[in-house]
Amino acid sequence: MLNEIKTAVVGLGNRGMSLLKYCILPREGVRVTAVCDVYEDRREKAAQMVTEAGQPAPFVTGDYREILNRSDVDAVVIMTAWESHLNLACDFMKAGKYTAVEVGGAYSLDDCWRLVRTYEETGVPCMMLENCCYGRDELMVLNMVRQGVLGEIVHCQGGYRHDLRDEISFGRENRHYRFRNYLGRNGENYPTHELGPIANVLDINRGNRMVSLVSVASKAAGLHEFLLREKGPEYDASQMRFAQGDVVTTIIKCARGETICLTLDTTLPRFYSRGFHVQGTKGMYMEDNHSIFLDGQDNAYDFKWKEKWGNAEEYRQQYEHPVWKQYLEEGVRGGHDGMDWLVLGDFFHAVRTGGPVPIDVYDAAAWMSITCLSEQSVALGGAPMAIPDFTNGQWLSRAPWDAEAAR
Amino acid sequence: MLNEIKTAVVGLGNRGMSLLKYCILPREGVRVTAVCDVYEDRREKAAQMVTEAGQPAPFVTGDYREILNRSDVDAVVIMTAWESHLNLACDFMKAGKYTAVEVGGAYSLDDCWRLVRTYEETGVPCMMLENCCYGRDELMVLNMVRQGVLGEIVHCQGGYRHDLRDEISFGRENRHYRFRNYLGRNGENYPTHELGPIANVLDINRGNRMVSLVSVASKAAGLHEFLLREKGPEYDASQMRFAQGDVVTTIIKCARGETICLTLDTTLPRFYSRGFHVQGTKGMYMEDNHSIFLDGQDNAYDFKWKEKWGNAEEYRQQYEHPVWKQYLEEGVRGGHDGMDWLVLGDFFHAVRTGGPVPIDVYDAAAWMSITCLSEQSVALGGAPMAIPDFTNGQWLSRAPWDAEAAR
Repeated sequence: MLNEIKTAVVGLGNRGMSLLKYCILPREGVRVTAVCDVYEDRREKAAQMVTEAGQPAPFVTGDYREILNRSDVDAVVIMTAWESHLNLACDFMKAGKYTAVEVGGAYSLDDCWRLVRTYEETGVPCMMLENCCYGRDELMVLNMVRQGVLGEIVHCQGGYRHDLRDEISFGRENRHYRFRNYLGRNGENYPTHELGPIANVLDINRGNRMVSLVSVASKAAGLHEFLLREKGPEYDASQMRFAQGDVVTTIIKCARGETICLTLDTTLPRFYSRGFHVQGTKGMYMEDNHSIFLDGQDNAYDFKWKEKWGNAEEYRQQYEHPVWKQYLEEGVRGGHDGMDWLVLGDFFHAVRTGGPVPIDVYDAAAWMSITCLSEQSVALGGAPMAIPDFTNGQWLSRAPWDAEAAR
Repeated sequence: MLNEIKTAVVGLGNRGMSLLKYCILPREGVRVTAVCDVYEDRREKAAQMVTEAGQPAPFVTGDYREILNRSDVDAVVIMTAWESHLNLACDFMKAGKYTAVEVGGAYSLDDCWRLVRTYEETGVPCMMLENCCYGRDELMVLNMVRQGVLGEIVHCQGGYRHDLRDEISFGRENRHYRFRNYLGRNGENYPTHELGPIANVLDINRGNRMVSLVSVASKAAGLHEFLLREKGPEYDASQMRFAQGDVVTTIIKCARGETICLTLDTTLPRFYSRGFHVQGTKGMYMEDNHSIFLDGQDNAYDFKWKEKWGNAEEYRQQYEHPVWKQYLEEGVRGGHDGMDWLVLGDFFHAVRTGGPVPIDVYDAAAWMSITCLSEQSVALGGAPMAIPDFTNGQWLSRAPWDAEAAR
């Protein structure tokens, strides 16, 4: 058992700063011993934050390789640009550091395999920080699924439906990786916020696996119109052509026969939603009107269904996930409705105990592979793409994901 | 101008009886001169309904071919089983009768082409009775789209999400065509209720067209479990394997770059929804929480969005479609929230004036082709299928659909 986890934080943009401030520095038994970002202003600000939190001044660097062999680093949290996630993760695993990596999508299947093989060669755990696996509603629905309330699960939907036009359009000024990614790529670039919780519902890599996908992108109209309006035609980005379609729809087929429909929807005006939607032979849950429909209890021909919108709250007490019951008693902390605190808590728990991480390299590889496979499918007019079995058959016998077991 | 439209009604199951009773017999200027069904009990009951409505006894037959050459028939309304729709429609067009045909999906592209060619050779109009094109919400949203309120339209979704387990499972006893179709086929078997209104929003066949699709089906679990529970294991259908997946997701790409995502979802417990969803560069509409989000007016980061559920009603007065404004003044009639009355009204108006029908053979062929193309795509693991241009280039210059112009 480690009494104090000496932690490096790599990547200090908006996300890195936020997690550092709200979910890492205030955590008992964790000390930040190194901060790293390619931009000097960011790393200096982070170092200041560490000392202001009453911790000794951390090692500060612009090159993560200077951290790899430091003996005052047990674990690393990587929150850099998408393109560098797997490179850094593999290097830190090889250096023997417990590794946490923020979410994103892969650029090639080979990179996903490299992540898996590096883990298998080094035995060093690497966890993807998919906070939405710890969402309160997502865990309540998972709990209902595990108790059989929704019957045999047949179909799930989810999305990353989030108006990011501001962030993407002015991304260069903010040194944000989304700008260049939206200029050059076209596919499901951010699948894991919805796919993670769905993968848990469907036992992906744990009795089930994703076998194939198709992906189709709409035209790209949102960003261009937004930039013209906000910056005028003289602004150079107003004349750029973004490759990324506004809405990308992906359908995944699973080994047990379930379908998953994902929607990336980030460059049109809309309200935020992860579009979480689970259907089984006995009932369904739908995020967008927060309703639960149960066979024999609700009436399919009830055309006044809208009076039931929000009725999922009626099931809260009975099906609140144990992790959240305890969390609510202790007090919800950190950002994103408390999910960030939980996901990092599970990572540090694994580091502290030297145990396995709950979202591992097989999950990360499978979930991230959706991005590059989606790009290929879009490019080929929606052609089906095979999703590799990154576990090489271990999925047939691995035990289902359990948010409780990790704590 | 025809003062009295002499009408044959062919196909007298639940749907046929209902339209006959509520939308055809009570209509001024329309007389039912022939009724036809392969089942004697149905046609006798229909004939009785006609005389009870105060009309002379109609010609009664079990063979539609006996109606083809009757001089006391100006128009025919076909509401038979899916498999016979296009056969009958073509025969009636060849016989010179104005033809209306209930909705369904095609079994082959060749049948769609035959419908188009028969129209082009005979010049006799044939209308698909897609009542949902006349839905109050669908027309309000179309009105908003035409006025540019939602900006450039980029993505639409829709579904036929209707728990039909009762109807399908006991379909043989009720002589219903869905039973055999669900046993043998697997695809998007009923696309037009959602696709019709979306096609109008996207100007399909009128400045735009659908170019390709992919389609993926989930496993079939709902009907089997339902039958076992409702009828027990001894009932023969409880041991049958249904080919039709519970949920079929289809993505269509259009010539102007829009995507359409369709969901068939008819064999799991759920509330009814057509899942109508329209997204443009200035805003969106979503049926499942009946909300409208407008850029610059609503806030994407408003995490209390659920307090806005149902806010589409706030736009009702401003954007109610003129057809519905007038209809509400006259009084809503017939079934399915008044849509049935409107769609048949447009058909009989066309017959009366000898004019064109608002939903014509090109629309019917394009919309119905989704079914057989979806079956093929599902069978080939989601492979992309080309959607023919049934207009042979006329779509480039045909004027947009106008619910008002037809009246």
